[in-house]
Amino acid sequence: MGEKNRIYLFDTTLRDGEQSPGVSLNVDEKLEIAQQLARLGVDIIEAGFPIASPGDFQAVKTIAQKVKGPVIAGLCRASRNDIHGCWEAIKYAERPRIHTFLATSDIHLKHKLQTSREDALQQAIDAVTYARSLCPDVEFSAEDASRSDLDYLAQVVEAVINAGAKVVNLPDTTGYAVPEDYGQFIRSIIERVPNIGDTIISVHCHDDLGMAVANSLAGVLGGARQIECAVNGIGERAGNASLEEIIMALYTRKSFYNKEIEVNYQEIYRTSRLVSSLTGMVIQPNKAIVGANAFLHESGIHQDGVLKERSTYEIMSPELVGVFKSNLVLGKHSGRHAFKERLLALGYDLDDTELAKAFAGFKEIADKKREINDDDLEALVKDRVKAVPERFSLEYLHISCGTGVIPTATVKLGIEGKVFQAVSTGDGPVEAACHAVDRITDIYGKMIDYKLHAVTSGKDALGEVLSRIQIEDNVYNGRGLSTDILEASVKSYINAINKYYYEISLRDQD
Amino acid sequence: MGEKNRIYLFDTTLRDGEQSPGVSLNVDEKLEIAQQLARLGVDIIEAGFPIASPGDFQAVKTIAQKVKGPVIAGLCRASRNDIHGCWEAIKYAERPRIHTFLATSDIHLKHKLQTSREDALQQAIDAVTYARSLCPDVEFSAEDASRSDLDYLAQVVEAVINAGAKVVNLPDTTGYAVPEDYGQFIRSIIERVPNIGDTIISVHCHDDLGMAVANSLAGVLGGARQIECAVNGIGERAGNASLEEIIMALYTRKSFYNKEIEVNYQEIYRTSRLVSSLTGMVIQPNKAIVGANAFLHESGIHQDGVLKERSTYEIMSPELVGVFKSNLVLGKHSGRHAFKERLLALGYDLDDTELAKAFAGFKEIADKKREINDDDLEALVKDRVKAVPERFSLEYLHISCGTGVIPTATVKLGIEGKVFQAVSTGDGPVEAACHAVDRITDIYGKMIDYKLHAVTSGKDALGEVLSRIQIEDNVYNGRGLSTDILEASVKSYINAINKYYYEISLRDQD
Repeated sequence: MGEKNRIYLFDTTLRDGEQSPGVSLNVDEKLEIAQQLARLGVDIIEAGFPIASPGDFQAVKTIAQKVKGPVIAGLCRASRNDIHGCWEAIKYAERPRIHTFLATSDIHLKHKLQTSREDALQQAIDAVTYARSLCPDVEFSAEDASRSDLDYLAQVVEAVINAGAKVVNLPDTTGYAVPEDYGQFIRSIIERVPNIGDTIISVHCHDDLGMAVANSLAGVLGGARQIECAVNGIGERAGNASLEEIIMALYTRKSFYNKEIEVNYQEIYRTSRLVSSLTGMVIQPNKAIVGANAFLHESGIHQDGVLKERSTYEIMSPELVGVFKSNLVLGKHSGRHAFKERLLALGYDLDDTELAKAFAGFKEIADKKREINDDDLEALVKDRVKAVPERFSLEYLHISCGTGVIPTATVKLGIEGKVFQAVSTGDGPVEAACHAVDRITDIYGKMIDYKLHAVTSGKDALGEVLSRIQIEDNVYNGRGLSTDILEASVKSYINAINKYYYEISLRDQD
Repeated sequence: MGEKNRIYLFDTTLRDGEQSPGVSLNVDEKLEIAQQLARLGVDIIEAGFPIASPGDFQAVKTIAQKVKGPVIAGLCRASRNDIHGCWEAIKYAERPRIHTFLATSDIHLKHKLQTSREDALQQAIDAVTYARSLCPDVEFSAEDASRSDLDYLAQVVEAVINAGAKVVNLPDTTGYAVPEDYGQFIRSIIERVPNIGDTIISVHCHDDLGMAVANSLAGVLGGARQIECAVNGIGERAGNASLEEIIMALYTRKSFYNKEIEVNYQEIYRTSRLVSSLTGMVIQPNKAIVGANAFLHESGIHQDGVLKERSTYEIMSPELVGVFKSNLVLGKHSGRHAFKERLLALGYDLDDTELAKAFAGFKEIADKKREINDDDLEALVKDRVKAVPERFSLEYLHISCGTGVIPTATVKLGIEGKVFQAVSTGDGPVEAACHAVDRITDIYGKMIDYKLHAVTSGKDALGEVLSRIQIEDNVYNGRGLSTDILEASVKSYINAINKYYYEISLRDQD
């Protein structure tokens, strides 16, 4: 098949996805996600909005320097200053792309930009011309395209192509479109622009009415060849089109769409889990492809059908997207070899040091929990191996609380080989323990969000606490794992403080 | 506008939604949801699958007896026994509907039913004929319709209309469809069936590829007049089309679809919260319409735009769907009047006894938490007012735990005015406390799922624990609320045991 049938996957998890209210990723977390996106094999990674903050700039630059494979794009407004700043961050990439945008709808021009159609047109031309003077690959986005006047939009598209844009994105910025009008809209623009040539038209849909995926694919039927989407469908408001749903719809309905994509399907599930874990954005069980229930059959009638013939109720296999359900269960008597084999099967190829750390954690948990399953193992690897350096480690915790008792916690923290202890009270046992930690570290965090879920079922379940801790002006995600929910809570708090400390120490080195 | 433009909303939260893996609602919970669906104003409530279990039968019967307004439907396979059982449960309704189904795709006929097209056709005719002899309103579903042979399917549809079906549903059972083919599919069937007349064609779409909402609406463009959907999009596997997204797409894009629906928009958000809370199915923050982020703007550019003119980035208002963000915050000095007014504004019109209970709870929490906001109030009303009778009440709890300490809990429970106490150890503090409860109640629950989330932010956040406790062969959802996560956990466990005890006592009365 020719290149015309190739659909390019443009992942914006680290840009629009990171604009999800409540999400804030640090440089290391963004790099980890970008590396996983490269393993998944997306075509373009939008790494961030470099001019937005020094942290964003650093993250985009680091990804441009270290992540090989995909095109690395940075977003910028249509101004010389923004474009220059973007280029300074992405220029280290093998294949950098400047992605510049300007609104084209009258409602945005009038109320937000307070400019005329003519001035905006010239601004778009100037922006793309300048961007092309820096970078061979330039994408232009006509913000709020789906609510723009068709003739004016076609005029802008023609002009930016003349100015050198290789990709033109026509987003449904407010999530207002439905497939029938959005597909026709893309088709109309392509028909109206005489110099369209090899220019790639791109779609970028929001899910405010629950139709981002269907709209994106309707755009493909209308002639679009790039889809902008995010892992787990995160992003502003109700989020973007979900990357995994786009991929699996093009795969499962290949005979209908007749398009080619190139990804490593088996990395889908792991990518989803990583993004959820680092952003703290939970995935509802009924989420397509990656939700906990996506491949489960509940009713007796469905179970009976699937047992007789899977295709009665299943249109794709969980194994394809990397959801492995193993009957093999590890326990306290399992050895290092079985442990390593199991991790390999789950896709974790650890070096000896990492393996030793993970195995030590495994033995600790196996003492408390009879059966260690795949979910436990994944949680363990994330907790132990992918951790920031442990400046502060929890050495001892004692809590006394209950009705009529002022919750009281005694904490010992290890710091550089020495052990420090403190005692404190609080409104609840978690707060008491956090206060005691604060007294030792002299770092005062504010808990702004807190979630606990059982990673596995049973009274001896491993509990995972995901907390979001504000320290000074930044927010750090903390993760803690234990069979004791109080210990998991305190560990997650200390994890966030370790991230803060690590970031501070990096800053001091610069 | 004529009746032809009216779209009927068929809610299957209590049937397909309750088939979500991990969800199990008792009779009271189903009734509560049905009453809220009636307040929301859906046209048809599918109350359950009466033949599936005695509990399902009881729930459908209770809803048929007590819920006024919507049509009450029950699902049954295409057999006399199923249909008879269904009728026995729904016949108490003002407007009952028998909903019978049979697969029409070759893959289902061959592998699941092991029958021929001819035999299945006759079975469908017999089922509808028998159902019509009992009930004037009969719906027939052609299971796996979207993968069925068009000619055969048209033949079945024609035959069941002749036999008396008023509504014919053409589901996309496996979530395989895309809008472009599903809309055309509905149009084709309507064109091929000569006796279609006033028959209402219905759509029922699954979200396996993330397109259930778009597919349903494409079906409407193709001529369907009933949409089957579920609150929060729950259901088998990746779930059904989401009711709230369907409603808001038809509302927001009325000029495009040109269809009429009749619902109380302001009940949308409350309905969503109730279903999530009772089913334990969390809503991801980026869920359209009802997710926590659905109406939040994160980036500076978006915030600036919205402040200048809301329509730059907002296509609907949160107030319309009942998301009220109030600046009015209650505290420990607030009186009963302000409390009552605030609850009224939130839609809770409590009688004096209920108000007294809720106010007592409010004062307890206000002692621990400085500001009580709307989320706190909703949680409180659910916890105190909507509760089952408290056979067992937590009077005292003391927990001691930590590193190297065997978690130990002392519990006092009130039972009919007397107080009993017990002490126990466990793998963690929650398990220790549950064991102590078990010793007093002599009821032994198994925790099969556990979730804790902060209802509000801050270290003094109210924590809500949702647990799923298996006792004998049934599963009970427990809910507990406290600023202390251990107390919330134990309360949720006791709540589940109270539900179990209440159900047992009702059973003994029968």
